[in-house]
Formats: sequence, C-alpha cells, structure tokens
Amino acid sequence: MKTFTTLLAPREAREAFARAYAPRPGGTERLPLLQSFGRVLAEEIRAAGDLPAFDRSAVDGYAVRAADTVGATSGAPAALALAGEVLMGEPASVRVEPGQAVRIPTGGALPPGADAVVMQEYVVRTDRTVRVERPVTGGENVTRRGEDLRGGDLVLRPGRRLRPADVGLLAGLNRTDVKVYARPRVGLIMTGDELISPGQPSRAGQIYDMNTYALAGHIEEDGALPVPYGIVGDSLQRVIDRAQGALRNADAAILSGGSSVGERDVVADAIAALGAPGIIVHGIAIKPGKPTILAVASGKPVFGLPGNVVSALVIYREFIRPVIQALAGLQEPARRRTIRARMAKPVVARDREDHVRVALTERAGALWATPVPGGSAIMTSMVRADGVIVVPPHGSVEEGSEVEVELLA
Amino acid sequence: MKTFTTLLAPREAREAFARAYAPRPGGTERLPLLQSFGRVLAEEIRAAGDLPAFDRSAVDGYAVRAADTVGATSGAPAALALAGEVLMGEPASVRVEPGQAVRIPTGGALPPGADAVVMQEYVVRTDRTVRVERPVTGGENVTRRGEDLRGGDLVLRPGRRLRPADVGLLAGLNRTDVKVYARPRVGLIMTGDELISPGQPSRAGQIYDMNTYALAGHIEEDGALPVPYGIVGDSLQRVIDRAQGALRNADAAILSGGSSVGERDVVADAIAALGAPGIIVHGIAIKPGKPTILAVASGKPVFGLPGNVVSALVIYREFIRPVIQALAGLQEPARRRTIRARMAKPVVARDREDHVRVALTERAGALWATPVPGGSAIMTSMVRADGVIVVPPHGSVEEGSEVEVELLA
Repeated sequence: MKTFTTLLAPREAREAFARAYAPRPGGTERLPLLQSFGRVLAEEIRAAGDLPAFDRSAVDGYAVRAADTVGATSGAPAALALAGEVLMGEPASVRVEPGQAVRIPTGGALPPGADAVVMQEYVVRTDRTVRVERPVTGGENVTRRGEDLRGGDLVLRPGRRLRPADVGLLAGLNRTDVKVYARPRVGLIMTGDELISPGQPSRAGQIYDMNTYALAGHIEEDGALPVPYGIVGDSLQRVIDRAQGALRNADAAILSGGSSVGERDVVADAIAALGAPGIIVHGIAIKPGKPTILAVASGKPVFGLPGNVVSALVIYREFIRPVIQALAGLQEPARRRTIRARMAKPVVARDREDHVRVALTERAGALWATPVPGGSAIMTSMVRADGVIVVPPHGSVEEGSEVEVELLA
Repeated sequence: MKTFTTLLAPREAREAFARAYAPRPGGTERLPLLQSFGRVLAEEIRAAGDLPAFDRSAVDGYAVRAADTVGATSGAPAALALAGEVLMGEPASVRVEPGQAVRIPTGGALPPGADAVVMQEYVVRTDRTVRVERPVTGGENVTRRGEDLRGGDLVLRPGRRLRPADVGLLAGLNRTDVKVYARPRVGLIMTGDELISPGQPSRAGQIYDMNTYALAGHIEEDGALPVPYGIVGDSLQRVIDRAQGALRNADAAILSGGSSVGERDVVADAIAALGAPGIIVHGIAIKPGKPTILAVASGKPVFGLPGNVVSALVIYREFIRPVIQALAGLQEPARRRTIRARMAKPVVARDREDHVRVALTERAGALWATPVPGGSAIMTSMVRADGVIVVPPHGSVEEGSEVEVELLA
C-alpha cells in the first residue's frame, strides 16, 4: 500500500513542476479579424503608417489660422471670409489663406494652411463671412496625424488575449486578418469502474462522469480545446493505452480518478509508465486535492486529478490552468478576479492549505462570505459557491474579518 | 442647427429607457452538454433523482456497524471478521452483520447493514480479521444518498450563464443536453462618408472602420451574435433602409457615427424615421459619449453611438451591454470586475460624468492608476488602458487617493 510520505506545499509543487517543464505554445493560424476576438495574438503588431493618417478636425466648426483669431471676443469678433467646405471622406480641396475660414465637420481632413478649428458654437456665420468670437491656439480641436500611433510604433505584443478594442485597432490599421496561436488540445481521460456517461442507464454503485464536462468548460475558458477520451475502467493497461493515445494527439493530458492511496492507484501507475521524466509531484498539502499528480511524459504535461469533482476543479484552477494558458500562448494571464467580503462563519484550516467554497450575500450594505456545506464529493458545494477563499495551513479566519474572495464567475 | 438643450444624467437616461423598453430573451435551443458552457440556461433544472443515488464511502477502508467500534483503541482494537469486498461500480453483494467488516474503496456503494466506514489508516488487517483501532460514529466517512441533491431539488434557475461546474452537475444528473436561450442578433450599421473597410485602399480624409470590429467582440462577450451590416454613407435614405433591414433580421440595432450636433445628423434623423416610440434619449451627460441616442422601434432597441471609437465603446459598456445581456436571457449579470488602486495623477471632471481610461502599474507594492492620454478619437487610449474610473460631474480625484477601477479585461 502506498502512502504520501511527503506532501509538498502548493508553492513547492508549482516550483518543482516549473523546473521540470516549461510550457510553450505550439502552432499559429491566421484568422479574419471578426473571428479573432478572445484569441491569443502570435505576432507583434506595429502601425504600418500614421494613425490617423492625416490631421483631422475633432469638432464641427471652421478650419482657420489660429493667428487670425487672437483676441477675438463676442464684442469684437474676428471676421474671416468663408472660403469653402471640407467634405467628409474627401481630401481638403481648398487652402486656408490668411483671413479665411473653411467649414469642416468632425473627422474632416484639415485643409492646408489651417492649423486649428473653431467650434461652430463660437461662430456667427453669414453667407460669406464667419465671425469668430473666441480665439483658438495652434493645434486646438485638431487630432494630429500620428497622434494615435506613428508608423512603426509597437502596438500589441504576442501573448495578449485580443480584446474588443484591440481588434478594433487592428481594423483601424488596415489589417484584415491576424496571426494567433492555435488552440492547444487537452486530452481528458476519466478512470474508474464506477463511472458511466450521461445517457447510459445506471445501477447502484455507478455514478455519472461529471469531470469531463466540468473540466471541458475550464479548458475552453483558458483558450484551449478539450478532447474527451472517454471513460476507462481501472485496468492499468487500458489506462496506459488511452493516455498514450492522448499524448500522441494532444498537447497535454489530464487523467482523473483513482489517484488516492488505495491498494491500487491505477492513475499513478499509468502515469509512471508513460516515460521520463514521469511523476514530478505526487501529493500536495492542499484541501481538497491532496492526491494530485503533476507529471511530464513525451515532453508534454500530464496531470493526475482526484476523482472527486470538487477536488478536480480546485486543482485545475490552481495547478493546471496556468500551464494550459501558457500552452495557449498567453503571456499576460488575466488578473485573478477577486472581491473583498466579511466572513460570516469562522474557518480553521488543518495541516493543508484550505480552499473553502463560499457563497456571497449582501447584508446591511456589506458583502458576506458564507462557507458552502459539503465535502469534495458534493458538486453543489461548487455550483452554489460564488468564490473561493484560501486559508493557509493551521491558519484560521475569524467571523467578521475581511477576506479576499476569488470569484468563480 | 440642433443643440442638446437638456443632457440627461446617465442614471436618468437608463431609467427613461427602461420605462420605454423591457428586453426579453427570444427563442431557445437544445445543445449537447459539451457545447453548452457559457450559454444562458433557459430551463429550470431539478434533480431527477437523488445525487448520489446510493450511500457511498468517502474513503478507502472498511464498512462496519459503528456500534461494533465503540471504545476501540490501538491497545484494545475491535476485532471484526472480514466478510467480503465491495467492488467499484458494483452494487454491494454482501450484508454486514454484527461483528463483521467489508472492504470498500472510496466511492464504493455502502453495503446493507453497515452505517459507517473506518479509514484503512486506522485498521490492522490480517487474512480474515480486521482490527479497528479507532471508533467511528454512525454515518462517519459516508456520503449519504441524496446528500448532494434530493430528487426534485431545484438546482439551477433559468437566466444563469452556465459555468464549468454547472455543466458538470448536469452530467451528474444524467442530462445529455440542455435548453439554452438562442443568441440574440445585434445588427451593426456604420455611417459616415469617411469610413472604409480594412483591406480597401485609402486616401486622405478616409479612415478605416474600427467600430464594427470592436463592438463585435463586446457583443460576443455578452452572449449575442454581431451581425455586421457594413458601412453606409451619410445619405439619410440609405441609413434608414439599412436600419430597417437590420430591424427585420436582428433583435437589436446599433448605428454608429454622425450623431453629433452637426448641421446634418443623419443617424438621429434615420432613427427618428424608424417608427414609434422612436428616440427616448438623445444626449447624455457623460464623457465621452454625449451625443448618444437610445431608441425603440418595431419593439426592438436601437442605439445611436458616436462615431469616435472610444466613445462608442464606453457607451456600449454603460448603456447597451445590460440590454444585450438581458436579450441573451441573462438574469444574473456578472459582477463588474473591479480592483482598487491609488490615483497617480489628479483628475477633475467638468459638467459630465467622466469615464477616465487608466493604466495600472505596481510600484512599491501598491497598485497605481494613471490616466491614459488621448481623447475619444484616440483608440490607443482604450487599448493601453487596463480599466476605467468614473468621476461624477464636477467631482475630482486627488493624487494618491483610492479609486475603484473597472477592469477592461
């Protein structure tokens, strides 16, 4: 019978695994802009030219020479001759000479000769004359050519998850497509003689596989493609075969189930049989999720997760997510989304770092975090939770004290 | 020439629009579980039966009658006869009689007669005898049938965006598919004689359409489908035609551009021509985004956004997002993702609520928010920002004071 002789602290486990394996994104693909939102940029984006490419008016008004408006007031306006009009989307066809003004819309190209725009609100216009009642300074109400970006400027770096504004900017730079990292494929192998797939009839002793479905969502969220390899019984050779198949076709493999300290630990034995360097970490001082395995085989990461779905999800978030995100090319992992709340009930951790699921409720203007009942086999303890708080080993949180809650959605 | 005689405060604008229009989700569709992550649930989910469906062992060990272990210690163990083994995934075939124990794995079905499980760590086993060195109480180390959910329990309500754990739970309840709301379609119409699409050659005076691409990402993020209707020039009739087309085929329409106080306000005139009740709000005391139009026609929401891309995105987040999310069926809008930071530079708002783009940097262990330079035509002011702070009209934020930053990603 195996025992966990040493449990690594979560940080030690992360560090040991990081020494053994450095995730790198795989291939790239070109996508039309409208399909690129949320994908991870795989090229450096520099401005091909200036943005905007010409001096633009920032307001509706009159393009002028600022010097012609010095000292203008409503009592003593500067009278300028109306010399024409700039049309939207057209290059300016008139030149503004001293003493002249040209009508210009917001976004219109500043005509040559002009160096500022007077807002129409400060102008009294007759047929052929424009009386300017306030002075403007050089450059006022003008968006200068290159003010947004100069040709050659670095705009976006590889490894960024494209946000709506980024995709907009790419369009503004006259890009029709963009190079992004291909989504890594993550094989999911469920082990356990008790597991059946939804839709199959069940008998006592059997339970429906939840982990494939819950992990798949997380994997998608992290920019990767879940590849379900189905359910394997507790036969060592069949688990090895399935895992080898996954490692041939996917960029990472997650096995779930069985890796507790039973008489048979099929998942651990199977992972150990996949090749060097093999198991890096087996057993982490975290609750839930103690029997976790972090391994490397065929140059790919292999994870052994506890079969209990809550444990599997906590471990995914803590140890697998960063690896999957790095495989997906992300170099700017999203900030953890946290919120502060007051603890509605005390929590005391034993010898492991405790990840406590909490529900958030507002009471008297304050946000309160209440631990959700249920152990690591109780899926509703995750579904009903709004977030998770982390209590260090042997630590405790008093009722009413402020905690940082990592949000689940 | 039109002027904004009254600007509504953002809250007044929201309230006026809410009185005129209540978004309701449209159709529904059934999806296989693995395609349902992130979609919005359109049915009430109740447990069809108990979860788990049988008493399960929570540990590896021995199923016993708790009464047989009273007072057991390592010095005076309770000796029980080994009566058999529970196999994973099988109904228990043996009954535990007084004085007996049955080997059971984590997740195994508790055999009849037993009411607790002794962890294997507290047992010394010989061939036919199990010496229990610690007492257990009734129910100890057992996950009771129905402990997670009882048949008929309400689990998930319509309007919830399905999270990974939710999809896992649906699988656990033997669901193979789930009813979700169909994604609403949001038509995007860009107006302006200066606009061209990426890939087209440009000349002075023309700029590339960014708004279609930036808005599309936001719309996807909110659970809807962007439907680009392309670029229309500043011809009133053509804008009306395009908008009517969008309203026939989509559930909402967003027009962008032109709705400033120029001599021609094609977007406003076009929206006004679409039918009753028409324009509800025109002009909001917000910066950027003052010329915003909130309207209803053919029973569908119609939005007129400023052409400047930064304004369009700020207004989308503040006024359009909640409507699109409601059309998508969401009844639990995500919490705004905020983070606290210290202001690196003072900000003073004029007469409008000011939405200031800020970049976040860590200095000496603290997070600092620095306003990103650039007005509402400067796309990089959005791309380089990590978040937005809101300063009330005539309000100010002092250097070093704490602010709540709404994160952009």
